[in-house]
Amino acid sequence: MNPNNQPKVAIIMGSKSDLHVMQDAADVLKELGVDFEITVVSAHRTPDRMFSYARAAADRGIKVIIAGAGGAAHLPGMVASLTHLPVIGVPVKSSNSIDGWDSILSILQMPNGIPVATVALNAAKNAGILAAQILSTADEYLVQNLIDFKERLKVAVESSAAEMES
Amino acid sequence: MNPNNQPKVAIIMGSKSDLHVMQDAADVLKELGVDFEITVVSAHRTPDRMFSYARAAADRGIKVIIAGAGGAAHLPGMVASLTHLPVIGVPVKSSNSIDGWDSILSILQMPNGIPVATVALNAAKNAGILAAQILSTADEYLVQNLIDFKERLKVAVESSAAEMES
Amino acid sequence: MNPNNQPKVAIIMGSKSDLHVMQDAADVLKELGVDFEITVVSAHRTPDRMFSYARAAADRGIKVIIAGAGGAAHLPGMVASLTHLPVIGVPVKSSNSIDGWDSILSILQMPNGIPVATVALNAAKNAGILAAQILSTADEYLVQNLIDFKERLKVAVESSAAEMES
Amino acid sequence: MNPNNQPKVAIIMGSKSDLHVMQDAADVLKELGVDFEITVVSAHRTPDRMFSYARAAADRGIKVIIAGAGGAAHLPGMVASLTHLPVIGVPVKSSNSIDGWDSILSILQMPNGIPVATVALNAAKNAGILAAQILSTADEYLVQNLIDFKERLKVAVESSAAEMES
Amino acid sequence: MNPNNQPKVAIIMGSKSDLHVMQDAADVLKELGVDFEITVVSAHRTPDRMFSYARAAADRGIKVIIAGAGGAAHLPGMVASLTHLPVIGVPVKSSNSIDGWDSILSILQMPNGIPVATVALNAAKNAGILAAQILSTADEYLVQNLIDFKERLKVAVESSAAEMES
Amino acid sequence: MNPNNQPKVAIIMGSKSDLHVMQDAADVLKELGVDFEITVVSAHRTPDRMFSYARAAADRGIKVIIAGAGGAAHLPGMVASLTHLPVIGVPVKSSNSIDGWDSILSILQMPNGIPVATVALNAAKNAGILAAQILSTADEYLVQNLIDFKERLKVAVESSAAEMES
Amino acid sequence: MNPNNQPKVAIIMGSKSDLHVMQDAADVLKELGVDFEITVVSAHRTPDRMFSYARAAADRGIKVIIAGAGGAAHLPGMVASLTHLPVIGVPVKSSNSIDGWDSILSILQMPNGIPVATVALNAAKNAGILAAQILSTADEYLVQNLIDFKERLKVAVESSAAEMES
Amino acid sequence: MNPNNQPKVAIIMGSKSDLHVMQDAADVLKELGVDFEITVVSAHRTPDRMFSYARAAADRGIKVIIAGAGGAAHLPGMVASLTHLPVIGVPVKSSNSIDGWDSILSILQMPNGIPVATVALNAAKNAGILAAQILSTADEYLVQNLIDFKERLKVAVESSAAEMES
Repeated sequence: MNPNNQPKVAIIMGSKSDLHVMQDAADVLKELGVDFEITVVSAHRTPDRMFSYARAAADRGIKVIIAGAGGAAHLPGMVASLTHLPVIGVPVKSSNSIDGWDSILSILQMPNGIPVATVALNAAKNAGILAAQILSTADEYLVQNLIDFKERLKVAVESSAAEMES
Repeated sequence: MNPNNQPKVAIIMGSKSDLHVMQDAADVLKELGVDFEITVVSAHRTPDRMFSYARAAADRGIKVIIAGAGGAAHLPGMVASLTHLPVIGVPVKSSNSIDGWDSILSILQMPNGIPVATVALNAAKNAGILAAQILSTADEYLVQNLIDFKERLKVAVESSAAEMES
Repeated sequence: MNPNNQPKVAIIMGSKSDLHVMQDAADVLKELGVDFEITVVSAHRTPDRMFSYARAAADRGIKVIIAGAGGAAHLPGMVASLTHLPVIGVPVKSSNSIDGWDSILSILQMPNGIPVATVALNAAKNAGILAAQILSTADEYLVQNLIDFKERLKVAVESSAAEMES
Repeated sequence: MNPNNQPKVAIIMGSKSDLHVMQDAADVLKELGVDFEITVVSAHRTPDRMFSYARAAADRGIKVIIAGAGGAAHLPGMVASLTHLPVIGVPVKSSNSIDGWDSILSILQMPNGIPVATVALNAAKNAGILAAQILSTADEYLVQNLIDFKERLKVAVESSAAEMES
Repeated sequence: MNPNNQPKVAIIMGSKSDLHVMQDAADVLKELGVDFEITVVSAHRTPDRMFSYARAAADRGIKVIIAGAGGAAHLPGMVASLTHLPVIGVPVKSSNSIDGWDSILSILQMPNGIPVATVALNAAKNAGILAAQILSTADEYLVQNLIDFKERLKVAVESSAAEMES
Repeated sequence: MNPNNQPKVAIIMGSKSDLHVMQDAADVLKELGVDFEITVVSAHRTPDRMFSYARAAADRGIKVIIAGAGGAAHLPGMVASLTHLPVIGVPVKSSNSIDGWDSILSILQMPNGIPVATVALNAAKNAGILAAQILSTADEYLVQNLIDFKERLKVAVESSAAEMES
Repeated sequence: MNPNNQPKVAIIMGSKSDLHVMQDAADVLKELGVDFEITVVSAHRTPDRMFSYARAAADRGIKVIIAGAGGAAHLPGMVASLTHLPVIGVPVKSSNSIDGWDSILSILQMPNGIPVATVALNAAKNAGILAAQILSTADEYLVQNLIDFKERLKVAVESSAAEMES
Repeated sequence: MNPNNQPKVAIIMGSKSDLHVMQDAADVLKELGVDFEITVVSAHRTPDRMFSYARAAADRGIKVIIAGAGGAAHLPGMVASLTHLPVIGVPVKSSNSIDGWDSILSILQMPNGIPVATVALNAAKNAGILAAQILSTADEYLVQNLIDFKERLKVAVESSAAEMES
């Protein structure tokens, strides 16, 4: 973490074993110039830690929470129930998951009143981009970074196209 | 509830609208002679209530918790994370559920360390029977009630068979 | 629409027949005090309209786009490809949908680089709340509205519980 | 098996090839201080053995049966039909299983009257913990073991968190 | 049943409520001139009855068993484990079934060694035809009935076609 | 093939690449003492061959046809439409299959009038046993072979059990 | 049918009961000015009729075949195996279908070599449009009709939008 | 590309990583004697390129477009919305796809008015054959190539059959 900047995004995950997926969120936030913190919070094994972490996040200056979990993934939804901040959920395809269906449905199908902004299976990168988009609604500098990011995506495809057509 | 007897089973549900399903648990517990309490506890809308309810249950004398919920059903798993008591989960097929798959997977696919004893979709009756079976491991009177219950199931089938064969 | 306030949220849907679902987003935004506009934009039948609408949205002052669609639901993802604004996708269970799986997967499973913040099947209400949460990251007044909203959810459950326990 | 102690939990499985999954139940029961026995009982290849095993279990002092099976997994449900003891079912993802869906549904979707306490796919460890929880409803020593077990889960997560945050 | 003829086909079902589906098997067997018996045998509620029924069937002259059941449908597979006779399984879409997937997979996915000849969801009529086909391998009279039956199917389609083309 | 005996079972498959699965049917028929023939017949690439093969099978003395195919598996159902013989379908999980669901549903869900006796995914061994069971309805020698086969299954499990218990 | 014009498109269906879905193909072809014929051809109940119909179609001047069927839907794929004409498959959600999955997979998952152009569940209208698009590759008049058709779709959406915005 | 012949078929794909699947379309078109072009067009990363490519295709002489994509695959449907040409969609099973279900449903389930001719998962070869079939409706030379192609499929199966029977 950058010690000089108050992080605006919190990346949390249910287990250390989710890090190989969740690291993508950290990497793209760095690329987009957004400060973040990253840690492990387990809904099922550390419910008290989850409660205090989620309840305190807004007061610490966190603006968006990204939560990744696999299987019966309760972390994103429970954090969303404990804060008014927008929560982005990343379904992680863990080892005993049933092809990821369990984590997708456990995160996506939240009841009315408590939304979780769900991204694709294992799509922590998109969670990071979405967090930046949310912050960019009040940050012109981030808007430009996102426009530049989209431009780079376009250029990469055009270069693939040129290569394939040649 | 019977005010004279300390209930040993707690039946909780995420929403009042789950009662038409969860009532079956209450009915079969009554039939089997097990005292219970029944109420609404929402993981997402009343997380503090869920915490205090689950944390206090054992000390109040509750031995088994039956928790029913639909959609991204986090109540059974979160309660299981907050108590050492056995927790029975009832997936409820609520109105916006995806054919019940979301509640089944959200309840069943708990990570290692925190089991939820899951029963079939909408099978609150089986949750009640299972709670009685759990209590019967230390209650000979309940054993007899369960044996009688099984006998009545058998007799009903035999009567259907006699009717169809005639 | 309120003609005096520049809307910050755009609610669009692929077909007039999605309105009975998408109206929930409008209603909750009104309850939370967020100005919005609402219209029909079809990815497949009016691609030019979709292009110009999505491209112009940010310059018109829109901060968040909510897009609902059924079946092979391309509207949320295509709008997300055409703007840097955060886009919330609402899978709509339309008449010939396969239990909603088609709209869920078409909206959720976006490739890396282009996120769509997906909510539950038919959960337009949650899309509205999420839009308000996003705007609240830079609007203290909205934060209070969201905290009050959560409080009302809690009180309603507690009242159900009191009723059931009595 | 410990010859000195009457086992209270029986772990059975449909095939020797399920042992690599079911061993987790044995291991966690040992960790929690619960005596158990373990063997192979096939519903389809040894139906007589299944009948006599299930019918005799309670009289031998068994209090809980853990049954694991794959594919069209009939062992847990049939054992539950033959005894009043609580039966815990472990869906095993065997080689020709259809991603585990067959074993999950064959075990979970029991008809009213005959519950099986189903745990997650391959989650024999959770089956063992659940068996201990059931026995703990009448065993204070086991309650403490379960509380300690939960504490160890918590400490492991906190240690992961500390490592990731450093 | 026809008291004069020893039935060669046994139609059994897990519950009286399956009769509206299983009656089709009886009707088509009558149409094809095959004597049958029909009754209720529940794997889970009358396991002893199932054992004795399945074990005695061959000696009573039964040649084929048709077994229908819903949910976690164990009847066809358990009967198949208890007899060397061919067993035809009919998945029944019962009220709390998950769209029939549970009964299909519980009947179809039998382990190697114990086949169940599974027909389509609710396709008791096809189960009856299949039973007749099995008996026809040693009965020329039945062969002719089956050929005539196929001819009637063809004529009905040709008549629909003529009508639609006119 | 044994040139001296008229085969009673025909094993056909849609592609040479299905042989690694379908060989199990041949092996178990050999073990059970049933003569068979085995070849490739593709519904989609050799429809004329399929027609003449299926139409001629009964006259050549074939009593049961086992047909295996993957993906949109039309071979078992089309053969069943072309003959009055019982047809056993083996869903094969081929390389581009969607986890086997396509072959299972294409074989199982036959319309009323034209049954296919479907066995589990890749369960060619069970198809062979089922063919023997069908023939055994008029062959006491085969009955004994099937009883012996079941006995060997039982003994193998009992030996596993003895080993695990020791 | 118009007796003066040789139909270029054949609409066939597996059962008269599919007509309420398949009529949409006829209606849109009429709207687009394409002559067609329509009839019933069952793969399973009239295999000979299917063979001769499919084999003769090209010589009669048919250019495209639209085939609709439900359940284990073999008609589109079998017709495709019997002709070099392009075949469009319409999965029909029939009464005993498993939510349409069976017909979709039976039609879509054709093996390499024999394509079927599959449209959405019950989307006979799209099958008709696709047939017109195919014919338009050599018919400028049809191109114009298709452009006009697309224009009408656009105008209808714009009118919905104007209404909703007002 | 063959610079001398105006290509009639355009093969496009959402990402360079789809080429290992989509190359099969190119190869079979070459085998069938159809000129084509091949390139990368991303709906989400290059929406402008997609618009101009799809809008210009007909005027450049393209008659059929084959579009392959994975995950939330919007390319085939969006291209279909932008042109009157027939569009063939190839669902690609990409790395983070959910077993291919997402790409299949995103391509197949198009709304009424905008068809996509969908082929099996990864079946780019069938897409190429289908494109040739479409062109053959006005090209006798191609008809003969397709008849010869079908003949080669048949001969290969017959040769497998002869080998297996020997």
